[in-house]
Amino acid sequence: MTDVHALAPARGELSLRSVGISGIRKPLSVQRHDRVNTLAATFRIAVDLPSSRKGSDLSRNAEVLAEIVDETVLRPAASLESACSAIARELLLRHAYATEASVQASAEYFLRKGVSEAKRSYEDYTLLAEASAFRNSGGSVRLERAIGAEAVGMTACPCAMETCRERLVTEYPLLADPAFRTLPMISHNQRNRTRLVLELAGDEEVEVDDIIAAIEAAQSSPTYAILKRGDEAQVVLDAHRRPKFVEDVLRDLLASLPERFPSLPDSVVVRASTVSEESIHKYNVEASHRVSFGDLRRSADR
Amino acid sequence: MTDVHALAPARGELSLRSVGISGIRKPLSVQRHDRVNTLAATFRIAVDLPSSRKGSDLSRNAEVLAEIVDETVLRPAASLESACSAIARELLLRHAYATEASVQASAEYFLRKGVSEAKRSYEDYTLLAEASAFRNSGGSVRLERAIGAEAVGMTACPCAMETCRERLVTEYPLLADPAFRTLPMISHNQRNRTRLVLELAGDEEVEVDDIIAAIEAAQSSPTYAILKRGDEAQVVLDAHRRPKFVEDVLRDLLASLPERFPSLPDSVVVRASTVSEESIHKYNVEASHRVSFGDLRRSADR
Amino acid sequence: MTDVHALAPARGELSLRSVGISGIRKPLSVQRHDRVNTLAATFRIAVDLPSSRKGSDLSRNAEVLAEIVDETVLRPAASLESACSAIARELLLRHAYATEASVQASAEYFLRKGVSEAKRSYEDYTLLAEASAFRNSGGSVRLERAIGAEAVGMTACPCAMETCRERLVTEYPLLADPAFRTLPMISHNQRNRTRLVLELAGDEEVEVDDIIAAIEAAQSSPTYAILKRGDEAQVVLDAHRRPKFVEDVLRDLLASLPERFPSLPDSVVVRASTVSEESIHKYNVEASHRVSFGDLRRSADR
Amino acid sequence: MTDVHALAPARGELSLRSVGISGIRKPLSVQRHDRVNTLAATFRIAVDLPSSRKGSDLSRNAEVLAEIVDETVLRPAASLESACSAIARELLLRHAYATEASVQASAEYFLRKGVSEAKRSYEDYTLLAEASAFRNSGGSVRLERAIGAEAVGMTACPCAMETCRERLVTEYPLLADPAFRTLPMISHNQRNRTRLVLELAGDEEVEVDDIIAAIEAAQSSPTYAILKRGDEAQVVLDAHRRPKFVEDVLRDLLASLPERFPSLPDSVVVRASTVSEESIHKYNVEASHRVSFGDLRRSADR
Repeated sequence: MTDVHALAPARGELSLRSVGISGIRKPLSVQRHDRVNTLAATFRIAVDLPSSRKGSDLSRNAEVLAEIVDETVLRPAASLESACSAIARELLLRHAYATEASVQASAEYFLRKGVSEAKRSYEDYTLLAEASAFRNSGGSVRLERAIGAEAVGMTACPCAMETCRERLVTEYPLLADPAFRTLPMISHNQRNRTRLVLELAGDEEVEVDDIIAAIEAAQSSPTYAILKRGDEAQVVLDAHRRPKFVEDVLRDLLASLPERFPSLPDSVVVRASTVSEESIHKYNVEASHRVSFGDLRRSADR
Repeated sequence: MTDVHALAPARGELSLRSVGISGIRKPLSVQRHDRVNTLAATFRIAVDLPSSRKGSDLSRNAEVLAEIVDETVLRPAASLESACSAIARELLLRHAYATEASVQASAEYFLRKGVSEAKRSYEDYTLLAEASAFRNSGGSVRLERAIGAEAVGMTACPCAMETCRERLVTEYPLLADPAFRTLPMISHNQRNRTRLVLELAGDEEVEVDDIIAAIEAAQSSPTYAILKRGDEAQVVLDAHRRPKFVEDVLRDLLASLPERFPSLPDSVVVRASTVSEESIHKYNVEASHRVSFGDLRRSADR
Repeated sequence: MTDVHALAPARGELSLRSVGISGIRKPLSVQRHDRVNTLAATFRIAVDLPSSRKGSDLSRNAEVLAEIVDETVLRPAASLESACSAIARELLLRHAYATEASVQASAEYFLRKGVSEAKRSYEDYTLLAEASAFRNSGGSVRLERAIGAEAVGMTACPCAMETCRERLVTEYPLLADPAFRTLPMISHNQRNRTRLVLELAGDEEVEVDDIIAAIEAAQSSPTYAILKRGDEAQVVLDAHRRPKFVEDVLRDLLASLPERFPSLPDSVVVRASTVSEESIHKYNVEASHRVSFGDLRRSADR
Repeated sequence: MTDVHALAPARGELSLRSVGISGIRKPLSVQRHDRVNTLAATFRIAVDLPSSRKGSDLSRNAEVLAEIVDETVLRPAASLESACSAIARELLLRHAYATEASVQASAEYFLRKGVSEAKRSYEDYTLLAEASAFRNSGGSVRLERAIGAEAVGMTACPCAMETCRERLVTEYPLLADPAFRTLPMISHNQRNRTRLVLELAGDEEVEVDDIIAAIEAAQSSPTYAILKRGDEAQVVLDAHRRPKFVEDVLRDLLASLPERFPSLPDSVVVRASTVSEESIHKYNVEASHRVSFGDLRRSADR
């Protein structure tokens, strides 16, 4: 059969940065401690294309993905990220004309949690993983990996809380009593989605549950599937005692990382973003930052 | 050219309830009081198909839509709903084999509003319109129409507010002072999306701004694009002084309709639904109901 | 603690048809033949609310869901649908004031398939399940269940194929040779999403893989993740040798059901819908129907 | 009232790259030749935040947006992009602590087109615009702008076409006749979404209709709302006579730009991406590239 992809392109001598497949879904089995989790993962898998070639052999992308991912049904992968790394490496082997391969994956992930031991159930999160493989001039392959997660929690606004307090003190003068200085006041609160991705350089290992824990600790409160009346009050109270702007969520999250991940080298780069679906507006409020562990450590020392 | 659609179907003698096009977007000019609004509307347009015909002439659906909607650039329609009615009627004329034509449309809609006169800006809502045309045995056409809207506002939970009050009273005994009986307490609050659709039977006229006003009056508070610090406090305070379950939003909305639309006959049927994007959960809470104006009036009389 | 939900509503004496939670995600383990599948399922769970009660005890919905679904990690459910049935029954037990409970669930589902044995990999589908429990006047509970699936495949248009043939014959007169009567001609082809739901009345068992097989047999061709050059030609050829309107997909699907599910009684009701994401338009074409097995059988006999 | 935002942050001395509002919808009136278009635009508006400040005054973002966008109802803007530029400049004035402001906007856009003059109707596209304002050390402001669009069209696969030809020639030996060398053969075809964004450096003017024309010329064929039988055949034929991989769409688009936009300087950077929603797969195929006009011109000269 004619290999149309291998023909020279009809026009231009343009190389292309990225050609691939996206939105492809696969079940991926992952070994988590003592049990196997099956993730329904979405992949985007691409390589670059030299100017000498009309098309990329995209069926190889689907084949590589199937071989590596389907295999995990029998032998579970260590993680979503390790599967991405294996796919990126294999892509460079199969696309001899490519110099760079990139893989992005996301998957829903469930952790058993609860406001108390008795009310635990599964909470859903999003896992994120990336791997890029680069062909060095000598033919060796360099790998870059990233691992991350997104967690939905809650924020309560510190500014509206203060202005509400000032308003209510004029209406209820007894509120001025020093005993009420710590009384949490009404504010607007809402769903907050926060995402943290760590760009690794070497072969550092990061546990995604630690990433989720870092995010939830930075929000005003985590949220839970099962809350009886008293638990609802507890979560509301917790959130109003830790009121946060998106700026606070982001800074507290970033500032917590050197302590949470002490073994990660300074060269690790952090991408973090957070979105609050404001209850008092029809639009969202968001903040994002990108910074190295080195800069985070230097900032903490100041 | 061979008309494949008009052939007898290869298999079966099955008539089909609905065959049409969906997700088609068009700009529709609508006369609103003294100015012309241009809506970017999405349409679904279908007719039934008798067992004797292989296919529906779907290009006619796109033609009818274009003729009626494109014409509004020159002569604005009275409303999204009147355009739907005209399309439904015309569909029956062009699909001689059909006995029923149905049109559904939605469009984003902006109203200039604000927490105060000085802070007005455009708030976005969704318009909803439906029309069905039925061919009677005598050849005449009967029309059913529906008009509706969706508005995003805010709810604050009345239950968490009470349990938080009980918790805080034990912590701050001075709160037990009767002066604080009306002090609004912390609760969870969140975005609420509420939808109201009126199924009309005759040629009643309903103003969509009145539907939006009814929805916003039933939520704990409307929300606004521009809120300075004092305004934020006001909206938060308003919402916490009118705490509502989704059940309350729905019932208050439904109960308000006979008074808001006194001229609508008992035969008008109301579909209402409401969703609160709970800040303390990762999932939503929702309620829905369907009831006639007659039943609403009888319920109010009890 | 005050039970605000149990209070009488402030206004109106309106009962509500449906109050519940939606968009809640859970991992559900299902026994499939010799292995356990873990589905990431989305649930909507609701009950009705009498006029005498202000609110529904929604935390019970999350509790019932957690108890039944989380339990499947240890003891896998028979199916998504059986889990829905168990949840619906339990909801009526826990909401003593409710007369009807309804559960809807959907989940992504993977089947290992391929254009040939050697090129098998996981293809993704959507499972659909519903259960409603009704409290009879005597206190007994009646259950209604539905089971379904959605599959993405391909359609090629029979009409454009004929008009292209007529156009090309004028350009290439040799095409008029009778030898080419069966030569498949160019047409537009596209992704087609088809959904089939069976509303069961008694305790009939339906295998969801059979539903998926019925859908894929009714499309112009199934689609596959791994297709090498020769396989692509095969799938394209297959689709163009079975060109189908959405009307054909729907009718062929419905007509095939009595033979595929011979043991299902006449009272089973079928809901089917199909959407082709037309390659020659920016909008979709769709068809839908609802019919009983009895009517399907009578139609086949004509 | 206490200005909580202006407080020093509780923890860390971290500046943040971007803090803002997103998903805010506004009607924007734009002067197009002799008439006024109203776009329903979505905005994301952000500034950076110094380490010395707890929060960003986000209500100013909504105010700036309202002032500039609402004003266009009376005096239409020149373009979505010019509105973004005005917003970015104004943001730096109102956020005295910020050194960079960024605005992204998208809006649905309708152009009256047709397969022939008689069958013209509105086709929908997406407009894209970006503006960033940077505060120079001397206090002056530098502006960067980008303008783009996305268009949905159609691709037919050149590879499957060749392999189908080879398969069919073995089945229909008469097809080997040289008269059939140019006969378009069956292939898979599908919706293709292509996006082109031009990053401008100075005050170059780009007409968005020219961007859309460039995209549609690079696809196998544009698509249309109204196609009668003969027109369908024409579009199918056109697409199969210009079969294209996503790689071809991207390269042809990029290669066409120097001629289409001769006055744009070498420093203008192009971002282009294209996605084909493959009819034979459940996943998409995509390609993307980023290149300067200078490099495009040098590539064309080779």
